[in-house]
Amino acid sequence: MFQKSFKSLSLICALVSFNSFSQVQKPPLNIVDMGSFHIGGRLVEVSGKPVKEVVFSPGSAPAKIDPNGRYLVEQMYVQYFTPKTLKSKLPILLWHGGGLTGVTYETTPDGREGWEHYFIRHGWKTYVSDAVERGRSGWAPPDIWPSEPQYLTVENPWGRFRIGTGLWGEDESKFKQFEGGLFPASSYLNFMRQVVPRWTSTDEATLAAYIQLIDKVCPCVVLVHSQGGQFGQKAAQARPDKVKALVLVEPAGFGDPQKADALKNTPFLEIYGDNIDQDSRWPSIRKTQLDLNKKYLQAGASVDVINLPDLGIKGNSHMMMMDTNNDQIAGIIDDWLSKKKLKSQ
Amino acid sequence: MFQKSFKSLSLICALVSFNSFSQVQKPPLNIVDMGSFHIGGRLVEVSGKPVKEVVFSPGSAPAKIDPNGRYLVEQMYVQYFTPKTLKSKLPILLWHGGGLTGVTYETTPDGREGWEHYFIRHGWKTYVSDAVERGRSGWAPPDIWPSEPQYLTVENPWGRFRIGTGLWGEDESKFKQFEGGLFPASSYLNFMRQVVPRWTSTDEATLAAYIQLIDKVCPCVVLVHSQGGQFGQKAAQARPDKVKALVLVEPAGFGDPQKADALKNTPFLEIYGDNIDQDSRWPSIRKTQLDLNKKYLQAGASVDVINLPDLGIKGNSHMMMMDTNNDQIAGIIDDWLSKKKLKSQ
Repeated sequence: MFQKSFKSLSLICALVSFNSFSQVQKPPLNIVDMGSFHIGGRLVEVSGKPVKEVVFSPGSAPAKIDPNGRYLVEQMYVQYFTPKTLKSKLPILLWHGGGLTGVTYETTPDGREGWEHYFIRHGWKTYVSDAVERGRSGWAPPDIWPSEPQYLTVENPWGRFRIGTGLWGEDESKFKQFEGGLFPASSYLNFMRQVVPRWTSTDEATLAAYIQLIDKVCPCVVLVHSQGGQFGQKAAQARPDKVKALVLVEPAGFGDPQKADALKNTPFLEIYGDNIDQDSRWPSIRKTQLDLNKKYLQAGASVDVINLPDLGIKGNSHMMMMDTNNDQIAGIIDDWLSKKKLKSQ
Repeated sequence: MFQKSFKSLSLICALVSFNSFSQVQKPPLNIVDMGSFHIGGRLVEVSGKPVKEVVFSPGSAPAKIDPNGRYLVEQMYVQYFTPKTLKSKLPILLWHGGGLTGVTYETTPDGREGWEHYFIRHGWKTYVSDAVERGRSGWAPPDIWPSEPQYLTVENPWGRFRIGTGLWGEDESKFKQFEGGLFPASSYLNFMRQVVPRWTSTDEATLAAYIQLIDKVCPCVVLVHSQGGQFGQKAAQARPDKVKALVLVEPAGFGDPQKADALKNTPFLEIYGDNIDQDSRWPSIRKTQLDLNKKYLQAGASVDVINLPDLGIKGNSHMMMMDTNNDQIAGIIDDWLSKKKLKSQ
């Protein structure tokens, strides 16, 4: 399969060199419309708790807050941007990974334009969302979900997101960026500012909200990252007529193998960065997707897998949409979508 | 003071009628730049807790998560938009109220353009932020802040935000919108989808982040709503040279009376909606600000107070940036800023 992918990517390789990262001032964005909405959610009931008096702002009159009643939970926040010149009839939906929000695709931690900018500039109506329980989607009161939120230390993602070795800290002898690594490591703390708490028990609710989003704004292209791999593949399996292509950026969550047939007409692009082989988790995570790919291929799907180092593109971390060559990687995706006739050049 | 305000607002009143709400298709937004960043925050240490194995996505390899370590907390998310034609040298910063995020100023719950759109369309570089612990700013692990988060039932804000009487619910005999009320009540649940949990013990951290934002992007105009009244006034008191005007939309939090002198050169506009007198809390909340205004006036500040019903504009709720005449209210603010020579027409 890898060999097959390489052949079909020769055109892309040729284009890559023209797409290389540059710091020059970019032309105006030219956004003609933007907006946001929340979708989905359900009402849940809380009862038997005492009424509280809460002073919400110092000096303000106390308000009686009765925690009993109903709460709206599991809705999802979505923001969209329309460029002046559309080059695709389809919008592209950018879904983030675990512990993060839609900010993943916005300005990079070191202040460069992100993939949201890239796809807007390249003629896509672009939707960026915060998954259920993340960011502007809000989260549920205690006892609604069966687990506690997880928090990420500043030390942890340095290794887990394959930026480098060791645990990040002030002592620079204890951690090191991979040689040639492209994550903007001096802005690592700006990246950590983007990290938000997450639950591990909300997958069904998250998937339900994504499917509602697809029903509202698709047909479309869905691009997912990491944990989003699960939601992208399962939502496409639920709405195969509406998801016209799936771009999986280092998927760490997966589709339902029993429903591989649903995606027989879905073109896939899967992209992996560098330094996977020496990682303790990533070889296994990638293998799970590659094994699932066999089922998609058996069903008749088109699956292109790109291991960036095999194309000579080295140093990409798990957060390749923030790496210094992020435009180059987005260009590979955009070119692949053109090749699949989902947009004009 | 009210009388004084009325005189100085005669021009505004004359303009109001030309600014009235309309459903016609608007011209393209023409945004030439946008971006986002997180500002501020501090590292906190957690120790003595057991290491956990967490499967973050079903089918994915378990990750060892050591909760001990350092966390980055109290940062703030900010998004900005630059229109093609700037009509002010200053940007405008829109700060939301309690239980909410920057979404307050985005598309209204019934799908119309919000104040963010209005100010972009009227030539302002516009910054919208999520206060510390809200939305995309994330929140701290347990034991960092001394209180629990508060959650709002769907029943509660109906009355507290002066949309109408009673408690919202399916039984329509139990709640009623104020006669002539302008909140888009049939989209009330879409508004509730925007509500997020909040703490009541994070004011200092929130203020610190707002001051850092001012230091980064001002001189500017700061427009605040409700709980934001505290942060707007206190941040301006800390940086009186950088906040060139303060717009307080139904402030429910207040400046420091001891530091009134700091704002002697700051023009204030304060706007209140309808149905305040029969409310259990709003007369007291408004009185606190009006009493503080006396100190600002004594210091030499310019303070304009608008009670919208006194101008013949009736039916506005606490969420006037979402009410059906939201463009009209934004127009009053924009005209006032022109009158203060902070923008060109």
